[in-house]
Amino acid sequence: MVNAFNLEFIESISIPSSTKIVLLVIDGLGGLPNPETGKTELEIANTPNLDKLAAHGICGLIDPVGPGITPGSLPAHLALFGYNPTTFEVGRGVVEAIGIDFNLQPEDIAARGNFCTVDEAGLVTNRRAGRITTEECIRLCQLLDGMVIDKVSTLVRPVSEHRLVVVFRGEGLVPDASDSDPQQIGVAPKSVNALRLEASGMASVANQFIAKAGVILAEHHPANMVLLRGFSKHPHFPSMGEIYALQPAAIASYPMYRGVAKLVGMKVLETGPSIEDELATLKQNYTNHDFFFLHIKGADSAGEDGDFSRKVKVIEQVDNVLPSLTSLEPDVIVVTGDHSTPAILKGHSWHPVPILLYSKWCRQDRVNEFSESACVSGGLGRFPATQIMPLAMANALKLTKFGA
Amino acid sequence: MVNAFNLEFIESISIPSSTKIVLLVIDGLGGLPNPETGKTELEIANTPNLDKLAAHGICGLIDPVGPGITPGSLPAHLALFGYNPTTFEVGRGVVEAIGIDFNLQPEDIAARGNFCTVDEAGLVTNRRAGRITTEECIRLCQLLDGMVIDKVSTLVRPVSEHRLVVVFRGEGLVPDASDSDPQQIGVAPKSVNALRLEASGMASVANQFIAKAGVILAEHHPANMVLLRGFSKHPHFPSMGEIYALQPAAIASYPMYRGVAKLVGMKVLETGPSIEDELATLKQNYTNHDFFFLHIKGADSAGEDGDFSRKVKVIEQVDNVLPSLTSLEPDVIVVTGDHSTPAILKGHSWHPVPILLYSKWCRQDRVNEFSESACVSGGLGRFPATQIMPLAMANALKLTKFGA
Repeated sequence: MVNAFNLEFIESISIPSSTKIVLLVIDGLGGLPNPETGKTELEIANTPNLDKLAAHGICGLIDPVGPGITPGSLPAHLALFGYNPTTFEVGRGVVEAIGIDFNLQPEDIAARGNFCTVDEAGLVTNRRAGRITTEECIRLCQLLDGMVIDKVSTLVRPVSEHRLVVVFRGEGLVPDASDSDPQQIGVAPKSVNALRLEASGMASVANQFIAKAGVILAEHHPANMVLLRGFSKHPHFPSMGEIYALQPAAIASYPMYRGVAKLVGMKVLETGPSIEDELATLKQNYTNHDFFFLHIKGADSAGEDGDFSRKVKVIEQVDNVLPSLTSLEPDVIVVTGDHSTPAILKGHSWHPVPILLYSKWCRQDRVNEFSESACVSGGLGRFPATQIMPLAMANALKLTKFGA
Repeated sequence: MVNAFNLEFIESISIPSSTKIVLLVIDGLGGLPNPETGKTELEIANTPNLDKLAAHGICGLIDPVGPGITPGSLPAHLALFGYNPTTFEVGRGVVEAIGIDFNLQPEDIAARGNFCTVDEAGLVTNRRAGRITTEECIRLCQLLDGMVIDKVSTLVRPVSEHRLVVVFRGEGLVPDASDSDPQQIGVAPKSVNALRLEASGMASVANQFIAKAGVILAEHHPANMVLLRGFSKHPHFPSMGEIYALQPAAIASYPMYRGVAKLVGMKVLETGPSIEDELATLKQNYTNHDFFFLHIKGADSAGEDGDFSRKVKVIEQVDNVLPSLTSLEPDVIVVTGDHSTPAILKGHSWHPVPILLYSKWCRQDRVNEFSESACVSGGLGRFPATQIMPLAMANALKLTKFGA
C-alpha cells in the first residue's frame, strides 16, 4: 500500500533551488463511465489544453491511500503532499477545526460537537437535534462562545447543521479525555473522563462546559444540549518547508483545504471564490514562492451531487484557464485529483486518479490525452499518491543524488 | 515487499452488506509460452466466457508474495485472502496437518514426520525409508496411532509416501521443542530438546513416542523409525469474518485448501470432486454467505505434471461452467490463480498471475481477453495479491470512507 519514503530520507536529499512547481488539484477528478456513453466525466469533457500538456508530459494513475480505499479529503491531501495518511493521523476534533479553517494554536484542544436533544430526565432523544439549520447552529454557537472556566477559554464555532467545534484554550491541557457522546439514544450523555491522570484538568473543564451549555440551551429545544467527542491537539507534522526545502503556498477557496495546507506548513494566500480568482492569485504571488498548491473544488461537489454534466463543465473551465498557468512557465506542472468522485456513485470512491506531470525532464510517454483510460498506459504507471512529491521535486532538479 | 495494509486498518473500515463476492481461484493459473506456439496455456485455451468477463471487467497481474518469489500453496492462498504470508507464519507441523485437513484443536501440537531407515547401531541410513508407498504409510500410521503418554494422546496420520503427521493432544503442551530429524545420514536421530523450560513436558512426551515407535516399527524395515520436526501450534489468525465483516464460505475439493480456508475462519462447505460439483455447491449455498472462495485444483496438477494440453483443458472446463456462476449475478467476481505453474517448468513459479475483476463499479479497461499478455496493459496494473480483498470489498461497496 502507501509505499512512502520516510520523510527524513527525502529531507536529506532535498535542496533549495529557483525552479518552480505547481500542483493543480482538481478535487474528485477521477470518475466512472456514464452508462449511456461509456465515457467518464474527464473523457467526455473537451480539454484541448490538458490533452496537449499530457502529450508533452508523462501520465499515470495514483492511489490516494491504496487500492480499494476510499479516502476523505484530509487524508487524500496529506498523501498528495507526501505524508502517509495512515501514519500521520489527525484527531477528530482537529479535523473538524481544520475543516472550518480555524486557526488552532499549538496548545489548543479541539473537540467535535453535536447539538442534541435531551428529555426532562436528561436522556438523549436525538443525537443531532433533528438536524437544525446552519443558521440556528450559528446563533446557538454565539450563545455558548467565550466562557472562561478554570482560566480556560472556550471558543465555540459552528460547522454546519447540528455540528460545531469547541476549542479549549488554556495552559497545560492534555487531550486524553473520553467522549461525552454516548453514541446512542435513551441514555444520558456520559461524563468526560481523564484517560490518564494528566488529563483530569481537561475532563473537569469539559464537564463544566457541558453543564453550563445545558443551562444556556435549556430553552432552545430541540437543540437543548451538546455532545463532545474526539478531544485532540494540533499534530506537530514536519513542515513542507523543512522536508522539501521549499517555500510553499496554497491557493484554495474552501476552508478545509486551507486548513490542511496550514497543517503541513504552507503559506495560505488570500484568494477569491472562482477558478479565475485562484489563477490571478497564482500570478500575483508567482515570484514569492517555489511551490504552489492550487485547489479546484467544483468537480468534487458536482460529483457528490451526482451531476455528471456539471462536473464535465468544471473540468472544461479548468482546461480553459490552463494557458494562464502554463504561460508562467513553471518548471514542473502536476495535474491530478485528491481522489475520484464519480457522479454515478455520488460520492468519493476508491478508483485511482489520473495524473499528468509536465517538465523539461519528464521523459514523455505515448499518452496524448488526459483521461482515466489513457493514463492506464502512461509512463508513470500506477503508484501511491505519496510518491508525487519526490517525483515533482526530482523533475524540478530539487533532489540530489542518493549515495556516492 | 508484500506491501499490505495492516488488517486492523481494513477491519476499521469494513461494513457488512448484502452484496456478494465470488473469488474463483484456478490453482497454478499463470503459465509460460509453449515454445512451439509462443502462447501460454491460458492463451491457447478457448475461453469465450472468461474473455467476455474480462472485456466487461478490469484486468491486471498479481504477485502472490512478491516479484521473483515462488510461493507454496499455503502462503499463496493466505495472500489471496489478504494475509501477508511473510507476517502470518504457520509452523511446518501445522502446515502438514492443514494439508490433510486435520481438524487441529487450539491446544494441539503438530509435528511433521518422516518414516526413515536406521541400521543396527541406530544410525539413519535413509531419511525417507526409500520412499515407501502411501498404502504402506497408511498401514504403519495405524500401528502408531492412539498411544497415550503421560496423559497426552498421540494421533498419527498418513500424508503420502514416507510423510506423516503426529499430533500431540494434552494439557499445557508448549511447542518450543527441537527437531529429532538430524537432516543427514550416518548419525543417530537427535533427542527432542525443550527450547525453553515450559516445553520440557512436550520434549519428554515426544522422546517417549519416538522410542515406542522404534519398538513397534522394528520389524518393518525399511520404515523402522520416525523422524519428527516442526513442532507447532495452530496459529490464532484473525478470522475473515472479523476483519471483513463477511460470512465467508469455501468450496474446495482438495484437503489443503479446505485447511487453509479453516485457518482464516471460513465455513468449509461439503462438495464433490468435479468442477461441476463445486458450482452446484455454490448454487445450493448461495443465499447463506456473502463471500465464496471457489478453488479449482486441476490446472496446477497438470502444470506440475508438465502436461500443457491437460492444463489447457482444465482452463477450458472452467470457462465452460462460468455461465452457471455469472448467472447467479454476484456483485463482484474475481478470477485469478494462487500462483503460476507453467507446464514447461513442471512446478510452481514466480511469474505474476492474471487477474480479472468484474463489478458494476470496476471502471472497465481496454483489455478484452483474459491472458498473461493482455493483462499486462490492464487497468489494475501489477499489484500484490494481498490487495485483492480490499479491492473486491470496495467494489462490493463493503468499505467505508477513511477519514473526513
